[in-house]
Amino acid sequence: MTLKFTLKKTHGKARRGELHTAHGVIQTPIFMPVGTVGTVKAMRPDLLKTELKAQIILGNTYHLFLRPGHARIQAAGGLQKFMNWDGPILTDSGGFQVFSLSKLRKMNEEGVEFASPYDGSKHFITPEFSTQIQHALNANITMAFDECTPFPCTEAEARTSMELSMRWAKRSRNAFIQREGFGQFGIQQGSLFPNLRKESTEKLLEIGFEGYAIGGLAVGESSEELHHAAAMAAELLPHDKPRYLMGVGYPSDLIKAVLAGIDMFDCVLPTRNARNGMAFIQSAELGGVLKINHAAYKADDSALDPTCTCHTCTNYSRSYLHHLHKEDEILGHMLLTHHNLHFYLNLMQQLRDAIEAGTIDSVAKDLLAQVR
Amino acid sequence: MTLKFTLKKTHGKARRGELHTAHGVIQTPIFMPVGTVGTVKAMRPDLLKTELKAQIILGNTYHLFLRPGHARIQAAGGLQKFMNWDGPILTDSGGFQVFSLSKLRKMNEEGVEFASPYDGSKHFITPEFSTQIQHALNANITMAFDECTPFPCTEAEARTSMELSMRWAKRSRNAFIQREGFGQFGIQQGSLFPNLRKESTEKLLEIGFEGYAIGGLAVGESSEELHHAAAMAAELLPHDKPRYLMGVGYPSDLIKAVLAGIDMFDCVLPTRNARNGMAFIQSAELGGVLKINHAAYKADDSALDPTCTCHTCTNYSRSYLHHLHKEDEILGHMLLTHHNLHFYLNLMQQLRDAIEAGTIDSVAKDLLAQVR
Repeated sequence: MTLKFTLKKTHGKARRGELHTAHGVIQTPIFMPVGTVGTVKAMRPDLLKTELKAQIILGNTYHLFLRPGHARIQAAGGLQKFMNWDGPILTDSGGFQVFSLSKLRKMNEEGVEFASPYDGSKHFITPEFSTQIQHALNANITMAFDECTPFPCTEAEARTSMELSMRWAKRSRNAFIQREGFGQFGIQQGSLFPNLRKESTEKLLEIGFEGYAIGGLAVGESSEELHHAAAMAAELLPHDKPRYLMGVGYPSDLIKAVLAGIDMFDCVLPTRNARNGMAFIQSAELGGVLKINHAAYKADDSALDPTCTCHTCTNYSRSYLHHLHKEDEILGHMLLTHHNLHFYLNLMQQLRDAIEAGTIDSVAKDLLAQVR
Repeated sequence: MTLKFTLKKTHGKARRGELHTAHGVIQTPIFMPVGTVGTVKAMRPDLLKTELKAQIILGNTYHLFLRPGHARIQAAGGLQKFMNWDGPILTDSGGFQVFSLSKLRKMNEEGVEFASPYDGSKHFITPEFSTQIQHALNANITMAFDECTPFPCTEAEARTSMELSMRWAKRSRNAFIQREGFGQFGIQQGSLFPNLRKESTEKLLEIGFEGYAIGGLAVGESSEELHHAAAMAAELLPHDKPRYLMGVGYPSDLIKAVLAGIDMFDCVLPTRNARNGMAFIQSAELGGVLKINHAAYKADDSALDPTCTCHTCTNYSRSYLHHLHKEDEILGHMLLTHHNLHFYLNLMQQLRDAIEAGTIDSVAKDLLAQVR
């Protein structure tokens, strides 16, 4: 196996596993902080490991390809060495960002042409090139290159898009260079259509990957649609490989998806919202969210989340964080980012513990009443 | 004594001392990182102590008075508690910022009226009120309120300004509440005129303070004028009290001023310039400064300053810091701030060691050839 995955325990559909990579073992279910351009924004990478116990982070191929360039990062010894993070890294394929962030896109069977938003320079990304870029970045988990199916779409549109992505998945796999402790995930598509998700899964299994992602969700559908589709999609995937629900989501989304059998998550919400002053906290009263800019916190010297054990909550008050936010101070972004990432990572720890203890149903129910 | 100062060793005019405060002992000569609004920008306060060994920081009365307000900080338990820094704090009097940052200033014998740049609200600060604000902030070292003498100015203008500041020094002293481990510094004025500096010193000594600052320098005069005036000003001050050269300066300024008998410094240069991509390094070749945005560093995987032992230099490359700076990433500001503060604090450690070892003349000469 190039990327060994073992299921330690299951309870209902929820799974407790271990994913072995060349840069360490990942305990699943797991949340992966997003490090877009080679930095989890406002977090020192060593503290991400020592204080937050992050086990794997995500890098964005699209951004790193444009700046500083994958050749540069390869010359520096890979993304781990470049950014001083010695743990595992998953990179996306760049597909989603090409479709959502770049201009002048032209797509054909071969790949996608796009213009850099930095300097207008034109680039052509194919499944092969995306895979090569991720290899140069030294990603422990490489994602297959796929098309971002628009939402909403007709079944015919979803089929055309899915079938293209499956041809690209095959080409991505052919371009992937096997190394011990490194692997590649295929991405299931098919929008909200069960028959397409099933066909997509069959094609991916025929190719064979070290793990499988659920793509094309969290793109505008309702929460009910998301969870219905994610549960249905997870159901189709093999038991012996990790399952990754891409770009999801709020804490409650993670809990529900873990119950549905998902093992891996990534999302910018904890980091991005921190910089906007939104703290995730465990509080039924506040609906799981505290907006630090609220005037009520100006003179509130209590901890951000009195039940939280993170560096921010054990050392700083709501009033101080309110003040830093009002002043747009970097330290405010640092401290809220720290807390929000702790919240997400600690949530996953609670879910892992509960699966092991066989208490996941009641723990999930309790948590769902207190988080956003 | 409310603020005990002991001279451990002198060599030439250079002094190696200890200043005892209620929040810890400060080894002098010392550099004080500036924490304008209650945060040393981009630095976690606990790391400022544990990793950088900062011994005292500076807070700005003007900023903290306007936001979040001194009453708020007093209610939170003082600035130390509010910002999670349990070491000593010096606050300026707010005078310099009232003159340099605020609009609609009206000055009379009583004090200064100014408008808040935040909301236009009018405020009137007197020597008594400035002293009360600093008391509420829980400053270990309170500065007397003074007028910022314009530069250049005639001797008559400098005399008028100095005499007002000395009357205000007396009123500041009368308003100061003595507490063990807390003290107040008077500020010598007189622009570049030796006779005025002498008269100012006599008036301050008549009042009596726990320490003496040299004010009105680093306001536009040449480097030669600054050092000539600072040396002359230091010469006038008593031996048994700490001497603080306000708002100075570059590393070479600190070295020269230590040789002239100065004990304390503050300056925004290491933190502000970090955010602009300027790293202070020990390099004759580079003139003591490395501008990380330079294209030469894009592919330079060596340490920022190969001789430096700080977290940034031992963990990250110039190429990574260049990338973070180009992307305007918060982590870039964090890492360069960390390095620059380490550089300043380590410089002072080297000077302290050299005074103790009796090698300050040669150490200073060596350093001056390598720093900006």
